[in-house]
Amino acid sequence: MELTHIEHLGIAVKSIEANLPYYEKVLGLKCYNIEVVADQKVRTAFFKVGQTKIELLEPTSEDSTIAKFIEKKGEGVHHIAFAVPDVQAALDEAAELGVNLIDKAPRKGAEGLEIAFLHPKSTGSVLTELCMEGKDK
Amino acid sequence: MELTHIEHLGIAVKSIEANLPYYEKVLGLKCYNIEVVADQKVRTAFFKVGQTKIELLEPTSEDSTIAKFIEKKGEGVHHIAFAVPDVQAALDEAAELGVNLIDKAPRKGAEGLEIAFLHPKSTGSVLTELCMEGKDK
Repeated sequence: MELTHIEHLGIAVKSIEANLPYYEKVLGLKCYNIEVVADQKVRTAFFKVGQTKIELLEPTSEDSTIAKFIEKKGEGVHHIAFAVPDVQAALDEAAELGVNLIDKAPRKGAEGLEIAFLHPKSTGSVLTELCMEGKDK
Repeated sequence: MELTHIEHLGIAVKSIEANLPYYEKVLGLKCYNIEVVADQKVRTAFFKVGQTKIELLEPTSEDSTIAKFIEKKGEGVHHIAFAVPDVQAALDEAAELGVNLIDKAPRKGAEGLEIAFLHPKSTGSVLTELCMEGKDK
């Protein structure tokens, strides 16, 4: 498949507010959006560095997958999202090569992107998202 | 501090060879270099996607920090490296803001970059590297 760049990194945190001083004051990044993704049970905060967004993911419920991730592995990088020109074509190609897919077809993610996840069993344990390049590129 | 982009992501793997088919055939990236960093007790494999390198880190010894990381957390993203124009200036600024530093001055990393690490205690548990932009930029 054809990857253009890393669209974002998803980072699991217990609290967005507790991490804002690090991202804003130390790293000098600007939080340009905070939104709740209700069906994922997360609040997300967005920053941009070069071509890539950093997306902090805070669980809004104890049964959120992010809460479970933090419980198991601690806070840290949760997933990598690569931008591709065509998510469905990339999924089809991956499936053809024997990759386990979490999503067989793209769905809507944060910021209105079309997204789909590959299963960590096929990606060296790195939860991997493919997404359609944002309109601001 | 001023971050220009994500220079690389370090990903801990048990075996580079076992992961090459995923990175090369599925993701379509090209492994352009494999090198041993003896004092870190790792073998590293490099790929490039957009502005960012992916650096697979394979332990060469059981007492490598990467081996310990895998034992504790499993394979996955080990660190994020941000490119800055001046590593020493960025470290001084971070220290001024109360950030715990692993390296108080830059040292040589893979690919001849000047690098320094911030302590995960100050970075929301994400091991974070600052490095001087590569000469190929």
